[in-house]
Amino acid sequence: MTIDLDFTHDPQARSWIEGPASHADFPVQNLPLGVFAPPDDPDRPRGGVAIGDYVLDLERLDEAGIVSPEARLALGLARRAPLNAFFADRAHARVLRRALFVLLTDERQQAKVRPCLRWRADMHMRLPFAVGDYTDFYTGIHHAENIGRLFRPDNPLLPNYKYVPIGYHGRASSIRASGVPVRRPMGQTRAPDAAEPVFGPCKRLDYELEMAIWVGEGNALGHPIAIGEAGRHVAGLSILNDWSARDMQAWEYQPLGPFLAKNFHSTVSPWVVTMDALAPFRVPQPARPAGDPAPLPYLLDAEDQAHGALDVQMEVWLSTVKMRAAGEAPHRLSSGPMTAMYWTMAQLVAHHASNGCDLQPGDLLGTGTLTSGAPGGEGSLMELTLGGKAAITLPNGEKRTFLEDGDEVVMTAFAQRHGYARIGFGECRGTVVG
Amino acid sequence: MTIDLDFTHDPQARSWIEGPASHADFPVQNLPLGVFAPPDDPDRPRGGVAIGDYVLDLERLDEAGIVSPEARLALGLARRAPLNAFFADRAHARVLRRALFVLLTDERQQAKVRPCLRWRADMHMRLPFAVGDYTDFYTGIHHAENIGRLFRPDNPLLPNYKYVPIGYHGRASSIRASGVPVRRPMGQTRAPDAAEPVFGPCKRLDYELEMAIWVGEGNALGHPIAIGEAGRHVAGLSILNDWSARDMQAWEYQPLGPFLAKNFHSTVSPWVVTMDALAPFRVPQPARPAGDPAPLPYLLDAEDQAHGALDVQMEVWLSTVKMRAAGEAPHRLSSGPMTAMYWTMAQLVAHHASNGCDLQPGDLLGTGTLTSGAPGGEGSLMELTLGGKAAITLPNGEKRTFLEDGDEVVMTAFAQRHGYARIGFGECRGTVVG
Repeated sequence: MTIDLDFTHDPQARSWIEGPASHADFPVQNLPLGVFAPPDDPDRPRGGVAIGDYVLDLERLDEAGIVSPEARLALGLARRAPLNAFFADRAHARVLRRALFVLLTDERQQAKVRPCLRWRADMHMRLPFAVGDYTDFYTGIHHAENIGRLFRPDNPLLPNYKYVPIGYHGRASSIRASGVPVRRPMGQTRAPDAAEPVFGPCKRLDYELEMAIWVGEGNALGHPIAIGEAGRHVAGLSILNDWSARDMQAWEYQPLGPFLAKNFHSTVSPWVVTMDALAPFRVPQPARPAGDPAPLPYLLDAEDQAHGALDVQMEVWLSTVKMRAAGEAPHRLSSGPMTAMYWTMAQLVAHHASNGCDLQPGDLLGTGTLTSGAPGGEGSLMELTLGGKAAITLPNGEKRTFLEDGDEVVMTAFAQRHGYARIGFGECRGTVVG
Repeated sequence: MTIDLDFTHDPQARSWIEGPASHADFPVQNLPLGVFAPPDDPDRPRGGVAIGDYVLDLERLDEAGIVSPEARLALGLARRAPLNAFFADRAHARVLRRALFVLLTDERQQAKVRPCLRWRADMHMRLPFAVGDYTDFYTGIHHAENIGRLFRPDNPLLPNYKYVPIGYHGRASSIRASGVPVRRPMGQTRAPDAAEPVFGPCKRLDYELEMAIWVGEGNALGHPIAIGEAGRHVAGLSILNDWSARDMQAWEYQPLGPFLAKNFHSTVSPWVVTMDALAPFRVPQPARPAGDPAPLPYLLDAEDQAHGALDVQMEVWLSTVKMRAAGEAPHRLSSGPMTAMYWTMAQLVAHHASNGCDLQPGDLLGTGTLTSGAPGGEGSLMELTLGGKAAITLPNGEKRTFLEDGDEVVMTAFAQRHGYARIGFGECRGTVVG
């Protein structure tokens, strides 16, 4: 968990390919990895790296034979989709990052590298990993309080919350990359005053603003991961929208937790922003409020407390059919920091493996909905509209309690700090279809 | 869901390989598929079929070139581990079954087939599928009542139980085939009278007697499976032991369900007993008790109600270190029928996909603990010992509330009916290690 900044974090560095946009997500200091399929070869997805408005096609780059010898093994793995094998060894990402940084900042390489670049907007992005298991945590304490308050106004948090990083297993098969339409689910719901449930379309469809933590190196069954080692098992991050059917959830979730209310679709942004790229944005885990218990020893590490949180900002944007027809820009519903997490990423990994459960490269850990605790920082409509009781009004006068067909939700995230290049995450986008 | 009995169900048929044991699990009417690695080639697992005391090595059989032309495609898929692709099309299992039945009952084929047989006890069994997602249901209504009664004596079942086939996502990565030792998990627990939790070894380790339902043909995201079609998406069954850390579960499970209390290890028996083999044992779904609601229309199908349950008996056996040292046989703790399921297998499939969730070949659906409702039919120690309050006494005088290190739990299952060959499932075996 040492913070290891090197020449790849130089804020003055600039690629010969980068456009003038000062707020681009993908400067040469970022170099996130993803899997894409070019339109001229749609059945052969391969690894790529986002740079400015382009994708660096790692298959072409490998075949061009211009990468330094020490990076060839890493490149040979990174060109192959999915990226599970590449991220299974933490050394690969750093070696490849350094090699690509050199190629993309050295003007003399331009003629050789240019043929490997593809216009990003034309590429079809896929999931970066074959996701073996997806676990969704519940680390957003303000979200947990807001949701708990709807059920238990005087005692929103359950007694285990400040001891146990609460989480549950989600559905891996229905995770999709940004852009795939989200079909409104059918399901059982029971109205508060009804004796019997009915089966029909979800009427309280919601989003949840989360970060996706990708597991890199795994562990063997029966072999826990110590908290001091846990941070090194994180490969990188994407944005996660944990679409939720609130009316189905309320009826089904007792006693074993959410199921069909969640597993109809989950959307992730397609670029894996590596922990190397995010190194300058490590910050101390916020102090716990006075009176909160300290983490149990298996979850407590001084280095992790000092550097284990990330200064990343997240945002949710909505556009309706009417807004798009009128050419209106999406409306920002909320924004907030990733430091709303009550537990660090390392604590989630260490807790998950503490019973011997085996994590594998490409496993996805959701942070849970990250609500900031300040007005405008609500990570779901359930919170923004007080459980559907207080509709919000959009700039064009439309009202929303929950999502309607045609609504498009776009989540974005970025890290920004004086003296460093801005690191963006790209988009996590989905449109509701009926 | 038509019951389609053919020559492969002839109870008089007998393979030239079968031994004299009248209660063998694997007569020629069974022909379950699995994945095994021979000791002389441990790194190349391949598909096999259990017959008597042997495994028919499908790789060797394919290379011998003696299978009828119409079965060659199926055999070419079945020889390859894992079996996901083979079971993705429901036609393969039947074609292969018929071809193997002919080979194994026709004396004239003996000389050609014998070289493809391997002594079963020497083979290392692996998981039959690469499990994409594992869902555990809660269909054992007597189990749900017993567990609920520990918390809510007057109202053990929650209001949704008789409408919603309750289920939740489990962990796919930690599923292992029979025989892999089960490490006692570490975890957080809080004693009833304690203010704070502690982290340490689980003290209330339990088994759960379940059946594993393997998904064959899948569905695309956003495309539900109609109840009338759902039964055809089941490839076959194995036995499932859903090991459970009761003390960890009690502390962690609110509000999102069980997590580390379950995901440290799950054991399945290695042979997939196909729905074709089980066809003679289809029975009507037991009538719901008077006053229970009818299933909602999306879960109700006359054919499924008439033939959608299975007459399969299940058993749990325990042997302790002392018992094995003294050469004593395992002690049967409980037994009961699979008809303890409140929902049919087809109802589980239809419900799971009703919101558009995509099921995939090799997904595992656990039935939930199947407790019979009669004394001696408890599917877990939690029930047998009334939550640990009433220790059971084994024949040698040892007592148990929960599992101790060295305890070996063996689950078995079989289908038996006058006029048909007995179909066995083999063993689901695991020993607790500290």
